[in-house]
Amino acid sequence: MQRIVACVPNFSEGRRVEVIEALAGEVRRTQGVFLLDVSWDPSHHRCVLTFVGEPEAVKQAAFASAARAVELINMEEHRGVHPRIGAVDVIPFVPLANVTMAECVALAKDLGREIWEKLGVPVYLYAEAAQRPERRRLPEIRRGEYEGLKETISLPERHPDIGEPRLHPTAGATVVGARRPLIAFNVYLSTGDVVVAKNIARAVRESSGGLVNVQARGVRIEHRGIAQVTMNLLDPVRTPLPRVFELVLAEAARYGVEVVESEIVGLVPLDALVEIARHYLRIHRFSREKVLDARLLELLGVQLVRWE
Amino acid sequence: MQRIVACVPNFSEGRRVEVIEALAGEVRRTQGVFLLDVSWDPSHHRCVLTFVGEPEAVKQAAFASAARAVELINMEEHRGVHPRIGAVDVIPFVPLANVTMAECVALAKDLGREIWEKLGVPVYLYAEAAQRPERRRLPEIRRGEYEGLKETISLPERHPDIGEPRLHPTAGATVVGARRPLIAFNVYLSTGDVVVAKNIARAVRESSGGLVNVQARGVRIEHRGIAQVTMNLLDPVRTPLPRVFELVLAEAARYGVEVVESEIVGLVPLDALVEIARHYLRIHRFSREKVLDARLLELLGVQLVRWE
Repeated sequence: MQRIVACVPNFSEGRRVEVIEALAGEVRRTQGVFLLDVSWDPSHHRCVLTFVGEPEAVKQAAFASAARAVELINMEEHRGVHPRIGAVDVIPFVPLANVTMAECVALAKDLGREIWEKLGVPVYLYAEAAQRPERRRLPEIRRGEYEGLKETISLPERHPDIGEPRLHPTAGATVVGARRPLIAFNVYLSTGDVVVAKNIARAVRESSGGLVNVQARGVRIEHRGIAQVTMNLLDPVRTPLPRVFELVLAEAARYGVEVVESEIVGLVPLDALVEIARHYLRIHRFSREKVLDARLLELLGVQLVRWE
Repeated sequence: MQRIVACVPNFSEGRRVEVIEALAGEVRRTQGVFLLDVSWDPSHHRCVLTFVGEPEAVKQAAFASAARAVELINMEEHRGVHPRIGAVDVIPFVPLANVTMAECVALAKDLGREIWEKLGVPVYLYAEAAQRPERRRLPEIRRGEYEGLKETISLPERHPDIGEPRLHPTAGATVVGARRPLIAFNVYLSTGDVVVAKNIARAVRESSGGLVNVQARGVRIEHRGIAQVTMNLLDPVRTPLPRVFELVLAEAARYGVEVVESEIVGLVPLDALVEIARHYLRIHRFSREKVLDARLLELLGVQLVRWE
């Protein structure tokens, strides 16, 4: 495995274990692809698969799992706290080793065409694959969500990038793209009050005056009875985890609220852990070159893409 | 590279760059061995090499660098803040993948015999290779250091495990052994007062009422004009870095002293970083399975030894 791409599709299913298992099964049975993680949450009603392999094989696995999701998930019956527009909500490709971002953009476009042609699901292209500047980030594409997009998709500015401007009757639409590694990071609060979580999210995220490269929303996790700040760190090199976490702590303290637990959805790059060690242990001169496991990976010939 | 051993020899040279480079050169030119790190400090007057490879090749590199050190380092002229008994002060082997601790013990004994027979340096066996319970840990073997051991080596209880009971005239004695991965961790204080560092070290280390599996000493780092707590975490799985660091912070605060910087000497295992993330970001359910780079290493067939 010389050339490595990661794919991290998000599906609108976080409750029926047998459906999640069917989606994961499609990836497992694709030759040359390795399923690394399956994360799901019943309140978000969403699951995330992480798999890696050579580009073409990864694209095949992505299509196979998408096809299965279109078959098994009915958006007419879907309600969760996470915004979404389709059964296969978003499929990002991430270059990991000996693959360029441009190749991942091409992969995204190929997959998008296949999804439209074979599954009849219209596709939006986002992040590095975006065809319009306002489609680089997901919130804009997801505006109005599945229910709203039924009507608004006919407006020229909401037309899909691939396919006709009408939603699939049960699978909605799909967003496909290529991006850097991001970190999906959720923080659970010592309160059930979603208003506190929403206030913290507003303070932390870029769109309302917080940290750049951070998306955040406040939600209530019904099955645990507590509020959560759910975040994406879009550029964890420039805006690292500790900076975000400390700001959440500080904002929570204004309401007398504590952080009871955090979670990473999917996988995290080693470089993010290096940054956590640098920050909290004050190891100013520290890098992945000082981590044994990273050096072994390098010795085995894996030259990971370095993100500046 | 299927079977992987690490070797982390410590030499009594931290000032003459050309000598450090000569020692590193012996490792670099050994076939099948990969030099991963060279750390040195002029105040400790000590350097540490970290290299990996198949067991036999690693032993060869260890011997080659030891022979060079015996030739280039004169203990009669050596003064540093770190305790030591020889030019090649200590050589530990660490099993990393598909190698047992027993094999590393055998490697240590073989190397010890070679060092005595070819270099005339008497050898003590320590850690898992120890022949007597009181020689499991280094401080007891190093008692009196190079200068004191000249006399005391003739006492039966201080006789070396391999070789005759007399120091090499310029290279002293050497300690060889096999052990788990440890973390060498130094903390720099916002004071030049070595007494504060010594007090913190006493509070933190096992031998005087502190944390188990922690060795610590307070020293003054002359070239920076500040005090340092220099530590070894002998079992970073059971007694992890954040617990030690937080105790250092708390003890330092008693004297109105802050930690200005920390450093890792040599390399750190990824699992230690996972523990830092768990602690500071409160990610209770987190493990190396959630780290992308660790999963890639696993996919490439490297099954690292798991330490419980």
